[in-house]
Amino acid sequence: MRKIGIGIIGGGYMGKAHAVAYQAVGAVFETQLRPVCEMICTTTEDGAREKAALFGFNRSTSDWRVLVDDPAVDAVIIASPQSFHREIALAAFARGKPVFCEKPLGRGVDDGRAMVAAAESSGLPNMTGFNYIRTPASELARQIIAAGEIGQITSFRGEHTEDFYADPQTPAGWRTQGGRASGTMGDLAPHMVNGALALAGPIERLVSDIQTVHKQRPDGTGVADVSNDDHGHFLCRFESGAMGALYFSRVATGKKMGYAYQIYGTQGAICFDQEDQNALWLYDSTTRSDRQGFRKILTGPEHPNYLAFCQGPGHGTGYQDQIIIEAKDFLTAIETGRAIWPTFRDGLEVSRVIDAAWKSNDERRWVDLREI
Amino acid sequence: MRKIGIGIIGGGYMGKAHAVAYQAVGAVFETQLRPVCEMICTTTEDGAREKAALFGFNRSTSDWRVLVDDPAVDAVIIASPQSFHREIALAAFARGKPVFCEKPLGRGVDDGRAMVAAAESSGLPNMTGFNYIRTPASELARQIIAAGEIGQITSFRGEHTEDFYADPQTPAGWRTQGGRASGTMGDLAPHMVNGALALAGPIERLVSDIQTVHKQRPDGTGVADVSNDDHGHFLCRFESGAMGALYFSRVATGKKMGYAYQIYGTQGAICFDQEDQNALWLYDSTTRSDRQGFRKILTGPEHPNYLAFCQGPGHGTGYQDQIIIEAKDFLTAIETGRAIWPTFRDGLEVSRVIDAAWKSNDERRWVDLREI
Amino acid sequence: MRKIGIGIIGGGYMGKAHAVAYQAVGAVFETQLRPVCEMICTTTEDGAREKAALFGFNRSTSDWRVLVDDPAVDAVIIASPQSFHREIALAAFARGKPVFCEKPLGRGVDDGRAMVAAAESSGLPNMTGFNYIRTPASELARQIIAAGEIGQITSFRGEHTEDFYADPQTPAGWRTQGGRASGTMGDLAPHMVNGALALAGPIERLVSDIQTVHKQRPDGTGVADVSNDDHGHFLCRFESGAMGALYFSRVATGKKMGYAYQIYGTQGAICFDQEDQNALWLYDSTTRSDRQGFRKILTGPEHPNYLAFCQGPGHGTGYQDQIIIEAKDFLTAIETGRAIWPTFRDGLEVSRVIDAAWKSNDERRWVDLREI
Amino acid sequence: MRKIGIGIIGGGYMGKAHAVAYQAVGAVFETQLRPVCEMICTTTEDGAREKAALFGFNRSTSDWRVLVDDPAVDAVIIASPQSFHREIALAAFARGKPVFCEKPLGRGVDDGRAMVAAAESSGLPNMTGFNYIRTPASELARQIIAAGEIGQITSFRGEHTEDFYADPQTPAGWRTQGGRASGTMGDLAPHMVNGALALAGPIERLVSDIQTVHKQRPDGTGVADVSNDDHGHFLCRFESGAMGALYFSRVATGKKMGYAYQIYGTQGAICFDQEDQNALWLYDSTTRSDRQGFRKILTGPEHPNYLAFCQGPGHGTGYQDQIIIEAKDFLTAIETGRAIWPTFRDGLEVSRVIDAAWKSNDERRWVDLREI
Repeated sequence: MRKIGIGIIGGGYMGKAHAVAYQAVGAVFETQLRPVCEMICTTTEDGAREKAALFGFNRSTSDWRVLVDDPAVDAVIIASPQSFHREIALAAFARGKPVFCEKPLGRGVDDGRAMVAAAESSGLPNMTGFNYIRTPASELARQIIAAGEIGQITSFRGEHTEDFYADPQTPAGWRTQGGRASGTMGDLAPHMVNGALALAGPIERLVSDIQTVHKQRPDGTGVADVSNDDHGHFLCRFESGAMGALYFSRVATGKKMGYAYQIYGTQGAICFDQEDQNALWLYDSTTRSDRQGFRKILTGPEHPNYLAFCQGPGHGTGYQDQIIIEAKDFLTAIETGRAIWPTFRDGLEVSRVIDAAWKSNDERRWVDLREI
Repeated sequence: MRKIGIGIIGGGYMGKAHAVAYQAVGAVFETQLRPVCEMICTTTEDGAREKAALFGFNRSTSDWRVLVDDPAVDAVIIASPQSFHREIALAAFARGKPVFCEKPLGRGVDDGRAMVAAAESSGLPNMTGFNYIRTPASELARQIIAAGEIGQITSFRGEHTEDFYADPQTPAGWRTQGGRASGTMGDLAPHMVNGALALAGPIERLVSDIQTVHKQRPDGTGVADVSNDDHGHFLCRFESGAMGALYFSRVATGKKMGYAYQIYGTQGAICFDQEDQNALWLYDSTTRSDRQGFRKILTGPEHPNYLAFCQGPGHGTGYQDQIIIEAKDFLTAIETGRAIWPTFRDGLEVSRVIDAAWKSNDERRWVDLREI
Repeated sequence: MRKIGIGIIGGGYMGKAHAVAYQAVGAVFETQLRPVCEMICTTTEDGAREKAALFGFNRSTSDWRVLVDDPAVDAVIIASPQSFHREIALAAFARGKPVFCEKPLGRGVDDGRAMVAAAESSGLPNMTGFNYIRTPASELARQIIAAGEIGQITSFRGEHTEDFYADPQTPAGWRTQGGRASGTMGDLAPHMVNGALALAGPIERLVSDIQTVHKQRPDGTGVADVSNDDHGHFLCRFESGAMGALYFSRVATGKKMGYAYQIYGTQGAICFDQEDQNALWLYDSTTRSDRQGFRKILTGPEHPNYLAFCQGPGHGTGYQDQIIIEAKDFLTAIETGRAIWPTFRDGLEVSRVIDAAWKSNDERRWVDLREI
Repeated sequence: MRKIGIGIIGGGYMGKAHAVAYQAVGAVFETQLRPVCEMICTTTEDGAREKAALFGFNRSTSDWRVLVDDPAVDAVIIASPQSFHREIALAAFARGKPVFCEKPLGRGVDDGRAMVAAAESSGLPNMTGFNYIRTPASELARQIIAAGEIGQITSFRGEHTEDFYADPQTPAGWRTQGGRASGTMGDLAPHMVNGALALAGPIERLVSDIQTVHKQRPDGTGVADVSNDDHGHFLCRFESGAMGALYFSRVATGKKMGYAYQIYGTQGAICFDQEDQNALWLYDSTTRSDRQGFRKILTGPEHPNYLAFCQGPGHGTGYQDQIIIEAKDFLTAIETGRAIWPTFRDGLEVSRVIDAAWKSNDERRWVDLREI
């Protein structure tokens, strides 16, 4: 075993999640590399110092360049706003440091392309943070599909639905003011687009319909215009020929973590809903017909990444554990020098689909991914 | 109470279902009109005689004109192939007889328009058979929406998914050989398009993607070309401004009766799946936030049409009961002389949407319903 | 085909259900015997006449002896209070008429023994009405167990829970005033005791705990004492050695039709809940371990009695259909002269278990069934 | 913030879980006390050294006395076999150190009484490890009940069912050879007995039935006798008058984490199943009757202990998070000097119920808890 210094840029929601993950991952996965939470960077010196204490870092800074340059920081986790992703990542690669970057990769396809180029020319480990797909259940889904257990996929339906803006009276805020980057297409869609690509392969073409339902929201004593989208649908064709439909929403009243998919194949089907993330539903149409049904597989020690958390099946993993799995994989990538999915390139492919969806919506037509 | 003679054209699946329904409906709903199963018409005289005995009719014929003309036949139920719907319906109206016609209404919009014109000029009761929407749960959904309990609808997602052709080795048959009328758009889509219109209102425009997954199927010792579609997606906008997505499939492996919808509104949401047809899921976002959740309402005597079947909630109704409810409403329409939903006009609106979807698919573009 | 005259004694809830069933069963199951609803008997002449009209009977009476004696009544359905079961059944057998009697069989074990003796010495078809077990799903459960698919049963848990008296303010009524016969042990327990016997075999011994939760209820302007039990638990051992636990309640807040069981065997398990009566959950522990899970089998044409109602799986049967299945089996018993489960003897076995439970509760000890 | 040295005795399943928890808890809950994993004790020096490295401890020992005496160890976590609980706990209290002890508390009631006496006379924080009840959902259930939201509890049904010995061919091992301590009553029952006491209050009397289903198991080339129980049922009455039924099993085929309860009250009901641990089902019978149903509350930031793990509702916590919550509460107890549920006394109450159940089973009679 040896120690590795971790630097995290971002002290919000995801910064904390990664801080916890890097403190837990060693004992959970009994990793060879043992992370040390070396430095955290947030926007002010005082704020950074406070976060360092709360989250358990040795040191802090308000300047991400200090963090990236610090000799004790061996690997960089980017959990800051998208506008900084590109510059930080390029600086870190320039200093020979592996980079884990939260989705979506930068502000769009341009940033993504630059980040992929830098990552690939550096030869350094790089990873994009799509945490929801990292549940044991979704990893199992990928294994089942890869093994051909449901035959050829003919249809993929996916969604990422939440309801945090379902109430028209929920006040305006940075999310509603931040333009496309913080709308539903920027914030939620990347997760399930990545899911679609991971589970059903590359998308060939799509048509979309994207809408801002509530165009104004209360803002203190007045109202503020909403600058981005509330929900959107895509229809698509995968390169395999399979049909797809995707739905993303922050106004799906009642949905809290509707990262869900239904995949139909020629020999079976798979269904999953993150609101019950410890179950994968599998239908096998090759067995005796009068005993067929969707079976609820509770994840357990036989399934990917589960055993590290618990020896008992059905005892369950949660949101924080997804981040721990990401940390484990990033450490393994660093230890072995091998790229581990999802890389920056995988992140870029997601951005291309989102771009295509905007183009389709804006031009009211089908868009081929080769156009992007 | 008084007797009313029923004539049913069609001795298949639906003919039987209506025969049972008209024998049960009097006792179930304690109706004023008491149906007598007077005559059944199927394609051959021997066949019709056999069906009359099996299904409990007084007489039989192989000529639908004999049935329509028979003085003891007071009302006509059309459960024959779509190519006959128009001619039969027009003949029945001409003789002053109310008509119940199975969906879809004729071979398309032309037939539908002719049938609506005849029905409306006759002033006679007319009804289209969309049975799945007739469950107590779906009727309750309509009541809840109409009462404004979920606020303004912002999103409607619906599907009608089954898997009877999911296996590529399932042999060709009349369904796969019958052209668009017996494909998924002709056979399954009308149910949920009707559901969408009933629950979310008229559709303004749509874009669709329709596919034949398995273009050939085994046929005796060789293979036969498949003449129609296996599945299709629509995106749409309702006149209300709400977004919609619809999915129809006969290749959705594992789905048996996936007539399902999720409806999101500004104050709540409704979910339903016909595979558990005695439950309606309701979310009310106006209540105390830390106690909110989708609640599973088991239908019971307080809900539409349930009490006639059972005094105990949760005891459940089934497929056959939907047909009995249709029979009750048709008898009520006859008794009162008032049109009862869904009329022929409602059936025509469904056909218009299906037509628009084909146009969209064929021309790869958004289609406005006013084009149809 | 030939006609058979049906006489029904009882014009309430169950009388109506049987009336509907005998009008529908011929067309549903295409039976050889075609029932004619010949006569109904209720407590007053006027009432009986009204029920005959509403439910579709040719004639009526207020004297059950008239019905039993009537030459056009070929078979007798007893849906009257339990205190009349014995006398009616014995009279019917004496006249050579088959008898279907609603559960529970008479007022207890004494009535049951007399009714079994009369039935068996007459050699006539006799059947007890335990309708809930007649769903396709529960019949499938019986088949799966009989085929050894879940191995040896080691544990059976069953319940029949409803909540119609959960509210302490629900007024007193005939159910709460009627003594043990109309309490939970008399009214609900027989269904699941029969289920336990049918699914797990004879019970050897048991211990019970039975309680009246709300000992008084509002009654007009005052309060009335409640004369019977609200809920009760049994623990038991089956003759097979399996353990059992049963729960019966009319105060299980939120439960509407909680006729449910979980059966664990050495090679698999079965779960069922009548609130979703079209699904049977099966676990098969002999298959690949990392793909195991409870599978939700939606009943369909391949399963017992389903096809008569519908050709599509998952389309669902309901409460009324259970009564139609009972009618079909009773007609088949008459046609073939063969006893069909559940006979009067099966009804008696249920009464013996209920008696044992009362004895156990009253004496606060384990009771061996051989004591009864 | 200040540091606190943690010593853990036990390097197995639970030792690891606590090691992870104490490394994560500071960042998760932003605690005032910041744990340092100071020392781990397992049975051999080499083994302890290896576990220290894997789990992230500074030092190791094979002698628990060394750990208890170590000046850098400020608090002791006992995750060793039950036979050591008493001696370790007493030694730790004697040195003025707070103790967290895994359930069940020692080998039975005698150990439990001694441990409670030592804890209470020491005045030191003490806690028993019942982790499953620590989910946000079960804590929410406790809050709802305490607030009277479901009225008076009339019935409590609980179970802890798994299936790790369901297969008769699963070989004998330490669990099947370890006598009552490692059978189902010793291993699984304490969790749900604690749940019953926490949710429905003290138990007054009970009757039980406990069974060893598979009396021998394969053991290398031969067979070995099984020394303890496979499953057991209890019926009980709570001091409140409510009825209870509990089931515990390691042979419940298909159940993986069946820690589940259904609680019926006069105004509502609660259901929970740990296999879907992020949902609590609540029924409120005081609302409009035709909109009632069990609602699935997905836990979120508004519910107990959730926000520390995630800002999004429905994103879910898992097994490891339960241990982190325990760690937080133990740290809080130390920091504040206030006892936090569940204390050693709560652990003792659980042992008394298990003892009563064995007495009831052995003597085949109802047992009053005052006898224990």
